[in-house]
Amino acid sequence: MSLTETTAPRRNGVDVETLFATIGVVKNQPELARFQFRSSHEWVSGTHNKGTITGFYGAGQEHQHAAPTTIEADHPAVLVGADHAPTPAELLLNALGACLMSGLANIAAARGIDLNGVSATVEGDIDLRGILGIDPDVRNGYEGIRVVFHVDGEAAAEQLAKLVDQSRARSAVFDVVTNGVPVTVDVAAA
Amino acid sequence: MSLTETTAPRRNGVDVETLFATIGVVKNQPELARFQFRSSHEWVSGTHNKGTITGFYGAGQEHQHAAPTTIEADHPAVLVGADHAPTPAELLLNALGACLMSGLANIAAARGIDLNGVSATVEGDIDLRGILGIDPDVRNGYEGIRVVFHVDGEAAAEQLAKLVDQSRARSAVFDVVTNGVPVTVDVAAA
Repeated sequence: MSLTETTAPRRNGVDVETLFATIGVVKNQPELARFQFRSSHEWVSGTHNKGTITGFYGAGQEHQHAAPTTIEADHPAVLVGADHAPTPAELLLNALGACLMSGLANIAAARGIDLNGVSATVEGDIDLRGILGIDPDVRNGYEGIRVVFHVDGEAAAEQLAKLVDQSRARSAVFDVVTNGVPVTVDVAAA
Repeated sequence: MSLTETTAPRRNGVDVETLFATIGVVKNQPELARFQFRSSHEWVSGTHNKGTITGFYGAGQEHQHAAPTTIEADHPAVLVGADHAPTPAELLLNALGACLMSGLANIAAARGIDLNGVSATVEGDIDLRGILGIDPDVRNGYEGIRVVFHVDGEAAAEQLAKLVDQSRARSAVFDVVTNGVPVTVDVAAA
């Protein structure tokens, strides 16, 4: 269900008219902008576990995704896991790359730029002496993350680069990963 | 490939003796702790894209996962996407839940606590007026994230709760999501 419906043609697979109409609706009814996203997790064995994403709240009501998605995680053999799936630290890089990529096509469409193809790589450097508890002066997380985009589209290189800049400027995951967010971790009563 | 090999029995699916031996090896050769994780991304259409995780560098050499993993992302219909997959913002919550879960079983095993089952939910509240560019005073990312664990194991509730505390204290993703990390986003020359 969209908040608005139009019959506009699509650019880059984006229904730009509906996108702008949706922004207009939310501008007038800011309570529609309140969303809650969720993930639920089950331990399997050792460092192997499964996370499932099914539904969310937003625009004043509950929504179910067209299909639930299960994403597994594990540690690799070199970290004494069974390597059934990527590490959670890789899943974090994946979320960042996905967010920057999702935004880019919307922005290109809004600016009237046709994209031919876009790819990106995300790399994060981490010193595992942190999470292994070896050195209290080493942080648990990444020291730094680098994202590099390749954008092939019907505009000058400078305009294509500005799509990436604007995607970064409006990315939910980039904001969280660079600025941090308060997280509470509690244990439910048995 | 593990850095060390033992014939120790497993607890919670964790080879505790090898885990401790690995930490010992890294303590003596800190350069083995330098890891680089990666994700690569391809745009599909609109907000739909695919991220792939195949290999990483660590413990002095390149590694390939047992199998590559592709994770898709999209925006839901209410946000003018095609809902082919979860949103990147949900993938971020998933990475956080996975990281806290992976650590927990290792810690329980190291403390000699048998787990019967562990589940967790992750919820994040976000005001989309940020990413929609409606209000410059609203951040793009989550305002707050809540994680709740249910731990069923062979120990007193207080000890089980301490597993969650220690997992949080040694989580790479929790560190990044709460404290932030420098991220560069560049465009490759055509």
